[in-house]
Amino acid sequence: MYVILVYDMGEKRVAKMLKLCRKYLNWIQNSVFEGEITEVKLKELLSQANMFLKPEKDSIIIFKSREERWLEKEIIGNEKNNLDTLL
Amino acid sequence: MYVILVYDMGEKRVAKMLKLCRKYLNWIQNSVFEGEITEVKLKELLSQANMFLKPEKDSIIIFKSREERWLEKEIIGNEKNNLDTLL
Repeated sequence: MYVILVYDMGEKRVAKMLKLCRKYLNWIQNSVFEGEITEVKLKELLSQANMFLKPEKDSIIIFKSREERWLEKEIIGNEKNNLDTLL
Repeated sequence: MYVILVYDMGEKRVAKMLKLCRKYLNWIQNSVFEGEITEVKLKELLSQANMFLKPEKDSIIIFKSREERWLEKEIIGNEKNNLDTLL
């Protein structure tokens, strides 16, 4: 399936979450990832995130679609925001 | 149609973008909005954003789906992240 994953994490956990998500998905914006992933791999990602996530402060939202083609993507401005150059 | 809108803006433009998006969509996470919107209204939103957006620094990504039911949403942690109390 195709997913969009967005997260909002406390400053101390952002780098960890970024590193974790990059193992499974494609980075498209500051705290936004997308990509094809299996249910099993997604569960793996989330169970690893659960180890450091603070549920009262942090949040992860996942949008799942059976088919990527059901979603049309439009990008305005700076794609990827030169994030790669920051790390 | 149903859209998910995520943005990444320079600090000085974040508040403006937030205020603009709230007129058209539902706020679900720090810089993430979703909701039903017409093509016309979306164009209106984007043309207003274009007035202050810095294309070399900022980005907006929009995922469009004809039907909301084609997307399944899963939320982990703190839904809405108490953002309303911050403003």
